[in-house]
Amino acid sequence: MKHIQEMLQTHPRSIGVDERRLAETIAALYECAQTCTTCADACLGEEMVESLVRCIRLNLDCAAICETTGALLSRRTEPDWSLIGAQLTACAHACKVCGDECRRHAEMHEHCRICAEACRHCEQFCNELLQSIPAHAAA
Amino acid sequence: MKHIQEMLQTHPRSIGVDERRLAETIAALYECAQTCTTCADACLGEEMVESLVRCIRLNLDCAAICETTGALLSRRTEPDWSLIGAQLTACAHACKVCGDECRRHAEMHEHCRICAEACRHCEQFCNELLQSIPAHAAA
Amino acid sequence: MKHIQEMLQTHPRSIGVDERRLAETIAALYECAQTCTTCADACLGEEMVESLVRCIRLNLDCAAICETTGALLSRRTEPDWSLIGAQLTACAHACKVCGDECRRHAEMHEHCRICAEACRHCEQFCNELLQSIPAHAAA
Amino acid sequence: MKHIQEMLQTHPRSIGVDERRLAETIAALYECAQTCTTCADACLGEEMVESLVRCIRLNLDCAAICETTGALLSRRTEPDWSLIGAQLTACAHACKVCGDECRRHAEMHEHCRICAEACRHCEQFCNELLQSIPAHAAA
Repeated sequence: MKHIQEMLQTHPRSIGVDERRLAETIAALYECAQTCTTCADACLGEEMVESLVRCIRLNLDCAAICETTGALLSRRTEPDWSLIGAQLTACAHACKVCGDECRRHAEMHEHCRICAEACRHCEQFCNELLQSIPAHAAA
Repeated sequence: MKHIQEMLQTHPRSIGVDERRLAETIAALYECAQTCTTCADACLGEEMVESLVRCIRLNLDCAAICETTGALLSRRTEPDWSLIGAQLTACAHACKVCGDECRRHAEMHEHCRICAEACRHCEQFCNELLQSIPAHAAA
Repeated sequence: MKHIQEMLQTHPRSIGVDERRLAETIAALYECAQTCTTCADACLGEEMVESLVRCIRLNLDCAAICETTGALLSRRTEPDWSLIGAQLTACAHACKVCGDECRRHAEMHEHCRICAEACRHCEQFCNELLQSIPAHAAA
Repeated sequence: MKHIQEMLQTHPRSIGVDERRLAETIAALYECAQTCTTCADACLGEEMVESLVRCIRLNLDCAAICETTGALLSRRTEPDWSLIGAQLTACAHACKVCGDECRRHAEMHEHCRICAEACRHCEQFCNELLQSIPAHAAA
């Protein structure tokens, strides 16, 4: 987090978005990507893997989407806000769908409980950033 | 393309989407990801790189989004169509924005002309698939 | 493939590598990434998923490594050949390990048979390119 | 970091690697991926972008390699240690090459100084983990 904010502060270009909020959202996105990657793998390693097939699939989708969205937000040069808005919308939706599925297994599998939290956390940051981006143009 | 269709045909799960159209869309997405990656790098290698800064940035965004969308469509097990719809919407938008920017440099740089075509091609496939997916629920 | 070669030919920078061979390797890498992504998902969709856990894991690793290696080779501006050599070495190894595992399931699952072929194909291209890159410095 | 360690601790499979060290390495990899992504973009946004072309290229390579390596280490089910070793070797090399280039611009650009540190930090963690993985088989 400290690193992310320092990098944004030393970036030559300025954009109309609160730097602290942006840094927190980027951190939440990379954390969610990592957590979903491990949750998919932990589910795959469980004895009852058949009951976790949908969870694994959504974890993989959510991890890829969070990574891509995190990369977009890590750039400040010549942003296209309508594009960033569309990707943030897809990402918030991925975090919701994946988080809901993880929550269904939360009592059985602690890794699903932690992952559901990471997804909810990330979903909230994406939605809040969506409200604050210039022009605020979702697709 | 042949490989993609064979893999879909031997997949144990069936989904309500035309297999040929799906395979063509996946091929367009991976091709667009590769083309945008090379176009960003070709722009970076030009003498007049300053005039191509926005093009490079959008190429990088579009490449990441196409790769992620291509991975989502490559999966058929337990798809969440509302999520796939939201990501396809973001991807079509990325291809539009990036293709428009590349077109502005098409007379000057042949790699931008080819990349603009790849983006337009991919945008069309994404939009057509959006019309045909079950429930057709964009975010 | 046609697109890849056109993009390389219109790139402003020249490197000391045969363009056709390079384009074929890039095509093999993106194809292998896509095939492994679908094979992981097809295995996940099988009734006997427990017997395919190792195959799924290696498919996911191989897909990520091929995508990254494909992106590296898609760039021609200021290449660091020792770095490209090290990544190609890791990629050839990933294709070998993943292909060997897929082959074990080839009689049972047609998608594993096709994926094993894609891996072997990609491994060969990586190894051949490794022999021809300037300085040829693996890590 | 806390999240990463919790996810590893609740994973059903055990591997012969110190959990804390593994979690620190994963954190360093995702941080380095994010930092390199922002450094490439910050360089692209500088007025003297021509002098930073090599830095941008290596930042993009290093970001992709760190992300892939981070995903591999985030999985504990059925690991292939020779493959992980080969990818860690490539990643340590990418961090070295990219960090060296960033350091050359560190006095001029603060974002390059921070990025050089993130690369060095990540390189050290990769090299240390390489010494401790079972069989310790680099490619």
